[in-house]
Amino acid sequence: MSTPERKPLIALTMGDPAGIGPEIIVGAWPETVVHEWCRPLVVGHPEVLRRAVKLWRTGIRVVEVASAEEACPSPGVIPCLRAGSDDMLKVSHGTIDARAGQAAYDAVVAAAELALKHQVDAITTAPLHKKALRLAGHDYPGHTELLAELCDVQDFGMMLYLGPDEQVLGPAGLAVVHVTLHTSLRSVFSELTEDAILVKARLADRFMHRLKGSRPKIAVCALNPHGGEGGLFGDEEKTIIGPAVQRGRGEGMLLEGPLPTDTLMVRAREGLFDAVVAMFHDQGHIALKLLGMQRAVNVTLGLPIVRTSVAHGTAFDIAWQRQAESGSLVEALRVASRLALE
Amino acid sequence: MSTPERKPLIALTMGDPAGIGPEIIVGAWPETVVHEWCRPLVVGHPEVLRRAVKLWRTGIRVVEVASAEEACPSPGVIPCLRAGSDDMLKVSHGTIDARAGQAAYDAVVAAAELALKHQVDAITTAPLHKKALRLAGHDYPGHTELLAELCDVQDFGMMLYLGPDEQVLGPAGLAVVHVTLHTSLRSVFSELTEDAILVKARLADRFMHRLKGSRPKIAVCALNPHGGEGGLFGDEEKTIIGPAVQRGRGEGMLLEGPLPTDTLMVRAREGLFDAVVAMFHDQGHIALKLLGMQRAVNVTLGLPIVRTSVAHGTAFDIAWQRQAESGSLVEALRVASRLALE
Repeated sequence: MSTPERKPLIALTMGDPAGIGPEIIVGAWPETVVHEWCRPLVVGHPEVLRRAVKLWRTGIRVVEVASAEEACPSPGVIPCLRAGSDDMLKVSHGTIDARAGQAAYDAVVAAAELALKHQVDAITTAPLHKKALRLAGHDYPGHTELLAELCDVQDFGMMLYLGPDEQVLGPAGLAVVHVTLHTSLRSVFSELTEDAILVKARLADRFMHRLKGSRPKIAVCALNPHGGEGGLFGDEEKTIIGPAVQRGRGEGMLLEGPLPTDTLMVRAREGLFDAVVAMFHDQGHIALKLLGMQRAVNVTLGLPIVRTSVAHGTAFDIAWQRQAESGSLVEALRVASRLALE
Repeated sequence: MSTPERKPLIALTMGDPAGIGPEIIVGAWPETVVHEWCRPLVVGHPEVLRRAVKLWRTGIRVVEVASAEEACPSPGVIPCLRAGSDDMLKVSHGTIDARAGQAAYDAVVAAAELALKHQVDAITTAPLHKKALRLAGHDYPGHTELLAELCDVQDFGMMLYLGPDEQVLGPAGLAVVHVTLHTSLRSVFSELTEDAILVKARLADRFMHRLKGSRPKIAVCALNPHGGEGGLFGDEEKTIIGPAVQRGRGEGMLLEGPLPTDTLMVRAREGLFDAVVAMFHDQGHIALKLLGMQRAVNVTLGLPIVRTSVAHGTAFDIAWQRQAESGSLVEALRVASRLALE
């Protein structure tokens, strides 16, 4: 356990106020391990947090602070740095609303600024709704692309990470990066390039190298069923993915592939790979959610700041009903704390 | 347990002789439960089987029979009805070879004929290699389409099935049907239609109705990430899948969807659905292999005959090395036995 002096200060964005963000923050807050790992600070609207406290009927106090350094979090006190306007207080729960999208946007921008100015050591984000974000005039496929722009980086990637446990047998856990992500399946064909694959493989290689302490073994997914079945079911394995794997090996990475994704994931679970490069969203997410829905964490790679996130969405269907589970947020704070200390 | 008189006679095809088919048959044979469930009869080449017996160093005898009714199987005796020419004896292990493709084809044709003539009660197939099949001049994406042609049916589907266990909590197990399957991912967009979805949903509905004894709950997968995210990540959910679900409900089916596939699969594992309609190969297979790689069984729906299959391929990389596991074949025989008795 880290000493109090070394505990990283983490800016935790509130997410879309119509979604489950505020209630999972309040739900996670009393977990004493969280306060042993880090000093969390919420970036959002104190009144929304107070409503979430009321929802859970806990006695946690929300204390508005004027700067990150004032934050003095404890299991009974949530320090909150105000971001966003009072407009968000009129938003109905569980609905797509431009005012809620703007609120989520404002919190991310404020948290990123704190991290870039080194006023916090990492940021962890609660979910936003992409359509609400777009209605508010911010046209990003998700958090990751917004953060990349705020940080002015080109080579970035979202990684899903599961720490080692009885479902994930690799000693350093399992990371999954996606070559394409928040885009239609139809767009995958135009976005899939050798360079795009290599960018993500390198990010996974660097990240898992840090976590594992040695060069990670990385499996690269095929795009088509049975890895293209020798060309019968598509040729992207031969024209794009295979050549990318060869180039990556030339750079020293321990890449294997393209491999049929269904059997590859079983091998990854068994610890035969430290990371998986998936070609599109569902390829990676189906496996990871089955392997650890509640504890999966998103890590944005390639940014100058440490950023983790819950691996689920705004869950409008259950928002503000005291049904949302905070496990992924707790794990996101754990991973952020660990990365911030390195 | 069924009485000896009621034990179904099952024709078990040998599959591609260069793959793991022959050795998993020999590996499964001594399992006494198999012989309690059914009377299995291999359709293939006795000499290939004898080589597999030699590989495993078991004392099982391969006895060539002239007709299905002569078969007198036991844990120590494999009755074999000859199919295919001696050409297959020259094929190298683990290689794509037209002669092996022809051998696999001949066995399937012979077994289907036995079933259509009611000389056997069901067929179970060991894996063939689609490229070898094609090299032999038989251009089918797989077993299923070949069998549909042999049986002269149009509305058919392959279902992956897992019986209930600690990973699959639904009382009747979990079935997964694919709207598109052995085709490139790029072809999914032209093959995906309302009618194609409904054909598969109806097959799953009928099959699981039989197994469950009441109308099954069926989840229909979205095609795009997050179910299309309200249209941001593609529109097939609105233009094709949603309308198909509405039509299916109008027919009385208990369909839910389109749902984002990653979270849907977690709910299916928890027993909230009896069946899943997947839009393409990997969507269904990634989940099913993680939920029960070794015991997943393929069932072809819509045929006038009962047909089950192992859920894995020819595994050329480990063929004839005594590494292949027979669990899926044993389970395929169990499910075929159960279906044949209904």
